[in-house]
Formats: sequence, structure tokens, C-alpha cells
Amino acid sequence: MNSIQHLIETALKEDIGPGDITTDNLVGPDLEGKGVIIAKEPLVIAGLDVARQVFECLDSEVIFRAGYKDGDVIKDGGTVAEVEGKLRVLLTGERTALNFLQRLSGIATCVRLYVDELANQSVRLVDTRKTAPGWRVLEKYAVRVGGAHNHRMGLYDGVLIKDNHIAACGGIIKAVDRIRANVSHLVKIEVEVSDLSQVKDAIDAGADVIMLDNMNIQQIKEAVAFINGKAAVEVSGGITKKGLKPLADTGVDIISVGALTHSARCVDISMQVEAAD
Amino acid sequence: MNSIQHLIETALKEDIGPGDITTDNLVGPDLEGKGVIIAKEPLVIAGLDVARQVFECLDSEVIFRAGYKDGDVIKDGGTVAEVEGKLRVLLTGERTALNFLQRLSGIATCVRLYVDELANQSVRLVDTRKTAPGWRVLEKYAVRVGGAHNHRMGLYDGVLIKDNHIAACGGIIKAVDRIRANVSHLVKIEVEVSDLSQVKDAIDAGADVIMLDNMNIQQIKEAVAFINGKAAVEVSGGITKKGLKPLADTGVDIISVGALTHSARCVDISMQVEAAD
Amino acid sequence: MNSIQHLIETALKEDIGPGDITTDNLVGPDLEGKGVIIAKEPLVIAGLDVARQVFECLDSEVIFRAGYKDGDVIKDGGTVAEVEGKLRVLLTGERTALNFLQRLSGIATCVRLYVDELANQSVRLVDTRKTAPGWRVLEKYAVRVGGAHNHRMGLYDGVLIKDNHIAACGGIIKAVDRIRANVSHLVKIEVEVSDLSQVKDAIDAGADVIMLDNMNIQQIKEAVAFINGKAAVEVSGGITKKGLKPLADTGVDIISVGALTHSARCVDISMQVEAAD
Amino acid sequence: MNSIQHLIETALKEDIGPGDITTDNLVGPDLEGKGVIIAKEPLVIAGLDVARQVFECLDSEVIFRAGYKDGDVIKDGGTVAEVEGKLRVLLTGERTALNFLQRLSGIATCVRLYVDELANQSVRLVDTRKTAPGWRVLEKYAVRVGGAHNHRMGLYDGVLIKDNHIAACGGIIKAVDRIRANVSHLVKIEVEVSDLSQVKDAIDAGADVIMLDNMNIQQIKEAVAFINGKAAVEVSGGITKKGLKPLADTGVDIISVGALTHSARCVDISMQVEAAD
Amino acid sequence: MNSIQHLIETALKEDIGPGDITTDNLVGPDLEGKGVIIAKEPLVIAGLDVARQVFECLDSEVIFRAGYKDGDVIKDGGTVAEVEGKLRVLLTGERTALNFLQRLSGIATCVRLYVDELANQSVRLVDTRKTAPGWRVLEKYAVRVGGAHNHRMGLYDGVLIKDNHIAACGGIIKAVDRIRANVSHLVKIEVEVSDLSQVKDAIDAGADVIMLDNMNIQQIKEAVAFINGKAAVEVSGGITKKGLKPLADTGVDIISVGALTHSARCVDISMQVEAAD
Amino acid sequence: MNSIQHLIETALKEDIGPGDITTDNLVGPDLEGKGVIIAKEPLVIAGLDVARQVFECLDSEVIFRAGYKDGDVIKDGGTVAEVEGKLRVLLTGERTALNFLQRLSGIATCVRLYVDELANQSVRLVDTRKTAPGWRVLEKYAVRVGGAHNHRMGLYDGVLIKDNHIAACGGIIKAVDRIRANVSHLVKIEVEVSDLSQVKDAIDAGADVIMLDNMNIQQIKEAVAFINGKAAVEVSGGITKKGLKPLADTGVDIISVGALTHSARCVDISMQVEAAD
Repeated sequence: MNSIQHLIETALKEDIGPGDITTDNLVGPDLEGKGVIIAKEPLVIAGLDVARQVFECLDSEVIFRAGYKDGDVIKDGGTVAEVEGKLRVLLTGERTALNFLQRLSGIATCVRLYVDELANQSVRLVDTRKTAPGWRVLEKYAVRVGGAHNHRMGLYDGVLIKDNHIAACGGIIKAVDRIRANVSHLVKIEVEVSDLSQVKDAIDAGADVIMLDNMNIQQIKEAVAFINGKAAVEVSGGITKKGLKPLADTGVDIISVGALTHSARCVDISMQVEAAD
Repeated sequence: MNSIQHLIETALKEDIGPGDITTDNLVGPDLEGKGVIIAKEPLVIAGLDVARQVFECLDSEVIFRAGYKDGDVIKDGGTVAEVEGKLRVLLTGERTALNFLQRLSGIATCVRLYVDELANQSVRLVDTRKTAPGWRVLEKYAVRVGGAHNHRMGLYDGVLIKDNHIAACGGIIKAVDRIRANVSHLVKIEVEVSDLSQVKDAIDAGADVIMLDNMNIQQIKEAVAFINGKAAVEVSGGITKKGLKPLADTGVDIISVGALTHSARCVDISMQVEAAD
Repeated sequence: MNSIQHLIETALKEDIGPGDITTDNLVGPDLEGKGVIIAKEPLVIAGLDVARQVFECLDSEVIFRAGYKDGDVIKDGGTVAEVEGKLRVLLTGERTALNFLQRLSGIATCVRLYVDELANQSVRLVDTRKTAPGWRVLEKYAVRVGGAHNHRMGLYDGVLIKDNHIAACGGIIKAVDRIRANVSHLVKIEVEVSDLSQVKDAIDAGADVIMLDNMNIQQIKEAVAFINGKAAVEVSGGITKKGLKPLADTGVDIISVGALTHSARCVDISMQVEAAD
Repeated sequence: MNSIQHLIETALKEDIGPGDITTDNLVGPDLEGKGVIIAKEPLVIAGLDVARQVFECLDSEVIFRAGYKDGDVIKDGGTVAEVEGKLRVLLTGERTALNFLQRLSGIATCVRLYVDELANQSVRLVDTRKTAPGWRVLEKYAVRVGGAHNHRMGLYDGVLIKDNHIAACGGIIKAVDRIRANVSHLVKIEVEVSDLSQVKDAIDAGADVIMLDNMNIQQIKEAVAFINGKAAVEVSGGITKKGLKPLADTGVDIISVGALTHSARCVDISMQVEAAD
Repeated sequence: MNSIQHLIETALKEDIGPGDITTDNLVGPDLEGKGVIIAKEPLVIAGLDVARQVFECLDSEVIFRAGYKDGDVIKDGGTVAEVEGKLRVLLTGERTALNFLQRLSGIATCVRLYVDELANQSVRLVDTRKTAPGWRVLEKYAVRVGGAHNHRMGLYDGVLIKDNHIAACGGIIKAVDRIRANVSHLVKIEVEVSDLSQVKDAIDAGADVIMLDNMNIQQIKEAVAFINGKAAVEVSGGITKKGLKPLADTGVDIISVGALTHSARCVDISMQVEAAD
Repeated sequence: MNSIQHLIETALKEDIGPGDITTDNLVGPDLEGKGVIIAKEPLVIAGLDVARQVFECLDSEVIFRAGYKDGDVIKDGGTVAEVEGKLRVLLTGERTALNFLQRLSGIATCVRLYVDELANQSVRLVDTRKTAPGWRVLEKYAVRVGGAHNHRMGLYDGVLIKDNHIAACGGIIKAVDRIRANVSHLVKIEVEVSDLSQVKDAIDAGADVIMLDNMNIQQIKEAVAFINGKAAVEVSGGITKKGLKPLADTGVDIISVGALTHSARCVDISMQVEAAD
């Protein structure tokens, strides 16, 4: 059972607990029904497969027909998907399925706006680790659906050396040397720097990526010129949608934005259920 | 292990995976450090105990000193808490602890704004089941911290009879009768209605709470007058912060707002770490 | 995986461990067989679906045909169900399936005797939380199958204020006020009282249900008269089957009896297995 | 985490769920209290350590002082144990702790009556696998506490060849030979037989134990004489407490009785809680 | 879910983690493929069913066709099995399936060499508890596939009294008496002894099996003669393949060899995958 | 609970099951003891912390004093560690602790021999994913303890494009382009090639690492010359200890050897236990 299935099971357990006392007592086990999932505002859909799994987790015989695929834009009022199966299953699973859809689509929709801002520019827009605990894999998926890229998945699949690490090792060059000796040769090493002197150390150390932390546009331009392709350049920290273009124009390779995940609001998606004739 | 501890463990696993390859390789296991958690904007703090548990889950000897208690307002720049312990533990746990804090405090801060809107009015502002899957208990806790109340926790601890249930049973009265015979006498029965005729049925059925679904102010006033204290009255559906006061003035008892949880954004909280001398 | 499936898996694991060394070594994997589950005494059957799941958990292709539905009375010698499938599966699953059936049917059979005692009376007979740890949902289900009702499922879906809670709050009225402010409006509040003075407080506090604890018949009558419909009345404590009718005649609304679950004995159910020709 | 700790956690989860809404809202987190666990009828106590673990699982700082050890007889009114700690913990854990104690002590008390019936006889009284699913290890423990012995723990730690196994193999001798070749040399082989001809086969096969299934006293005597110490002899099936002595007089070595576990009723144990001064 | 399924899931999780980033990004979800599993050296195959389950765990529609059954000898270059299904599933599951096969077949192949050394001798070659943690059931299975037998599965299904146990009890006879009174009558009692005086005690105590610990050939012969069939005789400790035959000639019943599991090396098995046309 | 703690718990469960019936019945719960863990052959120790955790998992009060740290060489007869605590805990945990130590130290010892072969050469010796399922993190740790490096941890933290991936994408350049667009910028891309034409494509595609698959020394030299520092070069496939030096002399950067994990045998480590006076 992978982490997404685990979250789906957890979600159903926390909502249903020992039982949906309303539905179990009022709706016969043999009644069939149909649910229509509808976008109540324009959105970029994400999580269709998760929503399908929510219903299938309750009853493997549910039929879930998506009218779109993840990443598609759906207009206000558009039919996202139709679900057919036991009426009990539709009513009990509805809220959980929507809770996944509204949140994942909210992220994808938010990301798309940022991505559009950078149209025709080669810079790579990436997310951060500022995700809702338990949702890392799903939120990073929604970011890709929206059109941006992922930074590392966690603390295990990429090296990011920050000031505390540097201090504990006695300098950037020592830190990079030591980490290179200890991690897989398939993992890149990124160093966070705050001034040109550190940029120079990072290049001397052979860092693969250099993160410019909270520098202004002018400082970024200087750093990019100095680095001159010897490492990839990332900027990070307090970046707004409006600030994207000027940043991209500095020639950096990567812009990371926490707001892609931590400040996206849920989009409005609802489900109309009706009993079969 | 309760559901919150489970989410904390899941969160640490998804971030750390097989290991924090940067910190484990660069920071010695015996180095001590101190972290200061800081509010980067005004906020209502929530989740201090969760943040503490994140660090303790990594190392039971961490010392976590909160300067506030959940529900307190903290100004921009205020010190939320201080953490002392192994430098490794501070660096590895930092992001997960902040991810909990920024989200829970975001909800509490949002809720407080709604609550303030209803100052001096006796109506009860409640949340919904529109929560992030896996976070139900925590988000509902943050709602209470913010000053509002909870609707039912899930499908198991309250009865809410909707149109599909009514249709499946052949009417409101039959539905209420059947459910009353089958659930514990400690569980109240709420019926969602869309017009006065249904209100009448719900009263005749002895419903404990009547939810007026998407009625306008005038209709709500009529319903309240008709019900006249024979059941508690809840309104729900598309309610904005601005719309709260006029709704409260109709005399309803309960207003439920999904946005309390599904549209709150994370607040900005950061942590400054430094090695001990 | 819900809590019942979890208990079924636990049960199979504790019985089979690393393997059924007798059957695995002596019965070929392709041999087919048939099992007939038989009532060895008159009983109210409960748990048919659980028994089916036990075998299906071992092999999803087992066919389980129940001759009755939960709640039916079966005579001594009656065929409860037939199971067809791999002989190995029948032999390995037999004891676990019967262990569920004999216990759940034992409760349903016991409950039916209590229910019959109260025939034609409107009082509601309910269970308590005196259940076998791990079996709460199943035992409460068997109580409903037997014809009685459930009290709250646990500490989370109903409020029951007892003497210690009252003392900690400084009185019944304060306790009810505080709890009403903190729990969902769909949860009823029950107060346990031991004399008329407390009854009065509970009514003044607006308690939904009042539990009369260990009062004698005369005291109960006085309390019922005093309460006069302003709250539901429950009696509890040391109630025998013989004592039910006199209690019901006092006009109380609810009688709770721990013996429904904690003192029911298992009924005798066996399974005859034979290899297919 | 062993299986008992797992059952304790499951029990607390099913009772507390998302929270003890009464206690959490009415009893301050710092209030201390004391609980006295009292026998409400004469009993053989069993499960003291389990009860202790229930409270410790909620709060490791609870102090649990047992006045007896498992297996002791306690009179009506005797103090089983005292528990000191947070009042919240006492109130929330009370029911679960008692649910374990009342059931395990019920089995031990029942077993003691059977054991006393066989005083001064060398026959070994043993239980069966007719236990409550999830409770195998605990119930078999209570049987030992009561003074009887255990049959095999499950299908994995002893061989018991029954009619279906014999038929599938083509005879007792083939079955015993095959199983001896496949299981550890530390596991004994028991064969269930229904007549003297099968007894002879079992001896020829070198069975370690022979179970006489539903034979009458006369047949048992003949079988014991025939076996004459070449194998241990067990009798099983429909044995009552009154029937124990005559069975023991036949010279059998082992008597197995399902009723030790499946028909024991819970004994009455309660807990008086009071807040500390 | 039994322990083997659990290990398979664990294995897939540890290899795949949040995703097979190479395959998921490069191979379309609908591409079909075929894999041929090939022996790269002569071997005794073991674990075919486990390998099948690995792929089925990823996709229940995979078709796994084994050309052999566990225990068969396969020549260098022989086709162990063919797997058909989604190309993604074959590529993602390949390494895990092979990791199981190469290790289990390695043990079976090693065991077969020991077994062949003892051809035509009645002595029973058995394994020990020196297995890789997490692999006990699987490694003991591979031992049986190789042609040897199992000692006890763990500390729960057989008694083995060693010097510390004897010392704690005050002698072999006291130890055997006490344990016989407390364990199931289906469990045999083995005593480890280091000289003839202890052998005598073990026989007097009625031990079922006597383990001669680190005795030389001459001592073993004397012990066997002394025991003379009154108990089974096991030898253990530092036994090489070459030393087997002389040991067997002493007349002992059981020889236990830790090297069967702890020193077997993996055999070389690979998988050739190709996309379907 | 991280994956190592999980494996420790699994290991203890599979060995102890429902109980260590020998020790629990023969050794009093209050007896204290001391165990001395001894190397029975020269070895590189690995897993001391795991062994400590095994005992602590049974009883948190055990004292474990290691005389060495992981990576140290210990002579035949050297004292690896001493353990003090309840005698029961020492006897029950002994086998599991040793099973971890003997296997992890076996890998570290084997790796050290390979590493010594490459003394004074800058090439990096790395392991593969050919590890025992469930042991990935531990075995890779033992490889580092032995002095070699790790290849990627699993399918999630590094890209390795093989022939099937290339075929599915229509060429190396397309494959590398597509994967670069989809994975984090911190993950390196390695391409497996079998001839110089593919080497050229891999360089043109900008691969970070090129794996030369089963090439002979002459081909490898040509490839290294051709690549000329534009990518790191790895060789893999059927490499023996003797073959290491000639390979290193070709100028490759990385040599991966599956035998480091899949063919290491356990080293001999034992534990002498004695009761405290």
C-alpha cells in the first residue's frame, strides 16, 4: 500500500469512523445511484485518480468516468466526472472525494497562474517543502499537474547545504567535500549562499546548484554573471507572482516559490447525487 | 497512538525518508543548538503542542518552551517558541514543525476574523467537514482555538439527513422515525430542508436541528419565525464574512461556514537556528 | 480497512501464525471441500457476514451461502450456512469463523430474551460500554441484531457527565454550560444524578438526558414525575432480567443493561467439513 | 509492540476515538486524582498488569499499586488496586481497564472452579482454541492463572490430525509419517480418533498424543487400557464440570474443555474515582 | 496479511519510495512487455511464488508462468519463469523479485549440497534460528525446499533448555519438571548438555530431545550409547559439510547447522525485459 | 518509527511470537544478568546501535556498552560489547541481536576487503540495489561502514536510464530530455550504454553519469578517453575482487559491485550470558 492509498484510507476512517449513521440507517444496501461532480468555478483539475480511488476503496465495483484528465482546464459548471454505484457508497464517499479534489485542483489552479506569468521563459519554476504534512507526494504531484516542477521530495533525495551546515563543518568547501564523499553519486549538491564571497566558495567547491537567498535583483545579476554557467542558479525567498518576470530576466535557472503549495486555496467543486430510477 | 501522533510520524517519514542526507553527514551527533520560532506576520497561534511533539518524536530530550498558548494573538516578529536540543534534531525537524504551525495558525487566524465579525451576537459559528483529508481532528481543533465551534466530527457522531436520504425513505417523517429507532439516544438528528413545507415536516418529525439550505434572508426569517424554538436552526451554504451579520440578525442559532477550513491560507512562521557555543 | 476487517485479520494471524502446520502438510492445495455450519442449540444468529469475511480473507474465491440473515431464530440442528472452497481454507478458517459466530450470536440470543421481557412496552433497552476490548463495534452490532438499542459508541459521540466531572466543574449547571459551549450542537448531554436535588439542577441546566443512578423504584417514580418530559430519563445499574418490567412501569425512557454484552455466553455452533468427491 | 499492547491500544482507540469529549472539556489537565478498583463479588483476579498498562498507555506517569497478584482470590469488597495520576487519565481509562479485568478475572474464576473439581488428581485440565478473536494470548494466560493448562496456542505450535486430514492422506499412518517428515522435531503429533481401530493405527504410527473424540466412559477405559502408556491420552467434547471426576477416574492424561474460555462470564469489578485534595 | 506479504510490501516500498522516477517518466502506462527470468548458474530454485506475488502486488493482472516448481534443479541458462504485463510493472518490480529469488534459491542450493552429503543416512539435517531478521519464515521454507528440515520456528513453538535456564532453576530435573507443568502437552522439551552427567540428568528428567553441545566424536558415541533411544539426540555447533558424515555415523538423530541459512550466498538470477511488439 | 526500528520489532516478533516459553517459565522476572558479545573471527564490526536497540526494545533499562564503534576492526576473541539487565531480556534478545550483528558485520568485513584492494586509488567503489528485501537501509549503511559508497538508495532518488527506457522513448537524447523536464533539479541522470555510439548520444544528451555495461577493459579505456570528463563514468557487471585494480587503472570514476551485499557471508559472533551473583 503506497502513501496515497494510505492517506485515502486514513481520510475515510476519520470521516466514517464506526459508521455513517445517517446513510447506513436510511438508505437500503441495494439502492443504486449516480453522482455528477461539477466545477463551481473555472479551475485546473487535479486528483481525478485519487477521487476514483476514494470510491473504489469503499466498493470496488463503483464506476468512475472522468470527462477530463488531470491538468485540463474546466469551466464553471463543467462536469468533472460521473460516478455510478451503490447510493450508500456515493453518499458516504462524497465529502472525502471532494475534499481531495478541491484541494489538489486548488494547487494546480494556483500553480497554472504562476506558470502563465513565465510563459516563453526558460526558467524553471519549482515548489518547496512547505506542504501540508501527510500530503507531500500529492501536493508535489498537483504542482506538476499545474505545470511547474518539483524541488527535492524530502530530506533524502537531494542535498541542500544551509548556513548551519556550513558553520558546523567550518566552511562551504569542507561541507561540500564531506557530503560528496558520503552520498550517492546520483545526488546533486546545492549550497545556499547570501553573498558573492560565498558564491565563490560554492563554485570552488564544485557545487552543482547555488541558491541565492534573499538577494535583490542587482545582487542576483552579479551572482549570475559571476557563476557564468559553472553551476545552476536558484533564487528563493518571499517571491510574489508579480516578481517572477523580473527575476526570470536576471538569467537564473530556477525560481522556488513556497506559495505554490502553502497558500493555494481550495477551489469549489460539488457533487449532485441522485438515486437510480 | 492517537491520530495526531500518527500524522506527526507520517509527516516526519515523508520528509526524512531513509535519512536527512545533508544534516546527518555534516552535523555531528553531539552538537547542541537552539531554534527560535518567529511570527513573520500578526497571527493567532495554534498547534504549539503539535510542534513540540514533532521535535520530541525525533528526540525525547528536546526542550520546547512556548511563549504563548494556543489562541493567543502574536504580533509580527514575536517569538512563538524556543527549542533547545541536538542541532541535528532542530535542523531535521524544523520544516515539519513549521508546516504544522503555519497551517493550523492559518486556520485559527482566519476563524478569528469571522468570529470578530459576530461579536456580541449569540449565534454559534461552526465549521464543516470540508477539511484536508487526514487533518480532521487538527483542523477542527484550530477552529475552536480561533473561537468558533465544531459541527459534527464525522459521519459517525451526528445525524444529518439530506435530500437523498429523505427520498430513499419516502419523506422526512419516515426518515427521522427510522433513524431515531436505530441510533443512540445521545445523538441529535438534523434535517436539511429547502422550503417551508419541509420545515413543517421536520418539526412534526421532532428533528432536533433544522438546516436551512441556500435560503435567502427573507425565507430564513420566515423559517425562524415558523420554527419558533421548536428546533435549533442552522444556515449553511455560500456564506461570506460580510454576510455573517445579516444572517445572525435573522435569529438563526447556528451558521456553518466551510471557508473556515478550506480557504484559510498558511501564515508565515519561520525558525532561526544557531549552534550552541 | 475498517475495524472489523482489522479484527478478522488479527484473529487469523493469532490462530495461524507462521502456518497451519497440520493442514498445510497433509491436505493438498487443490483439494476442494464443503463445510456445513450447524446450530447445536436454539439461537438468534448474528455475524454471518463476519464469518463469510473470515473465509474470504483466506481465499477470495470461497463461496459462503447463508440460509438465514442476522437476527433470525435458528432451531437446534438448523443449517446456519454452507461454505465451499479449497479444503485447506475450510479447515484453517473453521475455528476463527466459529469463534466469531458463537460469540456474536450468543450476545444476540441473550439480548432477545431481555427484549422479549419488555414486549409491548415503549421503553428503550440499551447496552453500555462494558464490551470486550477490540469488539465494541461488533458487540454493539449484535445488540441491535438482538433487538435492543445502543448507548453511545464511545467517549467521543455522546456526553455523559458523572459525579467526578460535576465536582471538577463546581456543579451540574456549570458543567452543562461549559460542555455545551465546547461540543458539537449535534451531541446530546446526559447527566448522571443520584438524588432529586441533582435532578432539579440537571433540568435547570437543560440536560437532554438524565441518568438516575442506583435509585429504587419509588425514587425513580418521583424523579420521572418531577422531570415530566423536560428531559429523557435513563436508569442504570445492577438491573436483572426480572427487574426490567417493574422498571419499565415507572415510565422511564431508557434502561441500560451491561449484562447484554458482558455476561452473554457463547452459543454452540459447529462446522462439519467434508472433502468434495 | 506485542499483541497485548496492540490490543490495549486498539481498545483505547475504539473507546476514545477523536477524544473523550466529556472529560476533556470538564476536567482540567492538571487535576490529580485517585482511583480504587474494587471486587464486587468473590473472584480470582487476572489481568492486573494489563490494567496497569491501560493507564500507562494514556500517561506513563500513572502509579498503579496492586494489592494482589494474578491468581489470588479476592473477597467481595476487596481492593484490587489503587491508581494515582491525572484525574483525566483515570476517568478516560477507567472503562477500558475494567473491561479487561472483568473478563480475564471472569475466566480465571471459572477455571478455578473446574480445577478445584479435580483436586488431588494427576490429570491435566486444558483449554481449547475456542477463544474470543484477538484475545487468544490473554485468555490462555487467564486459564493458566486459574490453575489449568493450555492446549496448543494456535495452528502453528502443535499438530492435531483430524478426520479430514486423515481422509486427505489415506490413513492415520500415512498422515503421521508425512507430518513427521515435515515439522520440527520439537513439535508433538496428536491424532483424533473415534474408535479402537483408529487408536491402534495411531499407536502404530507413533503418535505422541491420542485424542478420544466423544467416546463414552466405557470406551475411554478400553482405549486407555489398550494404549497402556504408549502415548498420552486426551479426551475432548461436551465435558461438563460434573463430568470431570468420572473422566479423570478413567486414567486419561488430559481433559480439554472449551467452556473454560467460551462460557466464562465477566465478574463484577468497579472503580471509585476521586479528585485529589 | 501474512508475514510474507508484509515483507513483500516492505521490500517494494523501500525500493520504490515515492516513485520509480525513471520508469514513471519514460515508459507510458499502457505499454506491455515480457520478462524472462534466467538462471545464470546451476541452482535449486526457491521462491517462485514470492516472485509472482511481487509483481502481482504492483498489478494484479500480471501473468507469471513458472517453468519449474520450488525444489527443482535448473541448469545455467535455464528459463526460471516468464512474466507478462505492463512494461512499467516489469521494470519497477524486477529488482525486488530477483532479490527474493536469488537469496531463497541461494539457501536452497546450499542446503541441497549438505543434504546430498548425507544421502542414504537416516539422520535429520535441521536449520537453526540464525536467520536474517524479518526472513525467518521464508528462510526456513527455503531450507525445506533444499531438502533439510526445520528446527523450531522461534522461541514460542519448542522448548530448548540451555545452561542459563538450568542454572536459574537449580538443575536439569527441576527445569524440565517446571517447564512441563507450564507448556502445552504438544510441545517437546529439549535439553542442551555438555557432559555425560548432564545427559543422565536429562534422561532422568524425561527430556524428549537431548542436544550434545560441542562434544567430540568419541563423546558423542558414548552419549548415544548411554541414551540408547530414551530420547532423540541432536548435535550442534561448528559443523562443516565435511564433518557431516562422521557425525551421522555416530548414530545421532538430528544434526543442526547454522550455515544452512547464515552462510548461503545468493545465486545469480537475472531478468531480460522487452517491450511487446 | 523509522524503517530500522520497524525491522527490529518485526525480528523480535517473528522470534518471540506469543512468548519465549523456555525463558518465561524458567527464569524469574527479577534475575539480573550480564552478556558478553564476542567476535569469533577477525571482523569489521557494524550494527552496534542496532544490537543495542534490540535489547532496549525488550526493556528500556538494559545497559549496552560497546567496546568499539562501527567500522573498527576486532580481532578473534575480542569483546564486541557487554550487556547488562534482566536475565530474561538477555536470553530472549540474544539471538535476534546476534542475527543483526553477524550479518551487518559480515557485509562490512567483506566490503573492507574490496576497499583495501583499491587502496590509494581515487575510484569510488559503490554498492547496488541487490540487497535483502527489508534490509536496504541497513545493508547500505554497512557498506559505508566498510568503507565503500552507496549507489542510489532506490528507484526514487536517482535516475538510471536502461535499454528498455531508451527503447520506450525513441532514443537516449529523447529519454534524457524528457526525464530532465520531470524530475527535481537535484537528481542526477545516469544512462546505461553498451557501445561507443551510445556513449556519444549520452554525452550529447548531457547525461551526468554514464554506465558502461559489460564492456571489456579495452572498450572501457576508449570510452573513458572519449568521454574525457564530460560525465562521470561508472562500470558495472560481473566484477570480481581481483578485477578491481585493472578496472581502476582505466580511469573510470565509479565501480559498482553487487557482491558487496549479495554475497557477503555472516561473520561469527557469539554471546556468553551469565546470571549476576
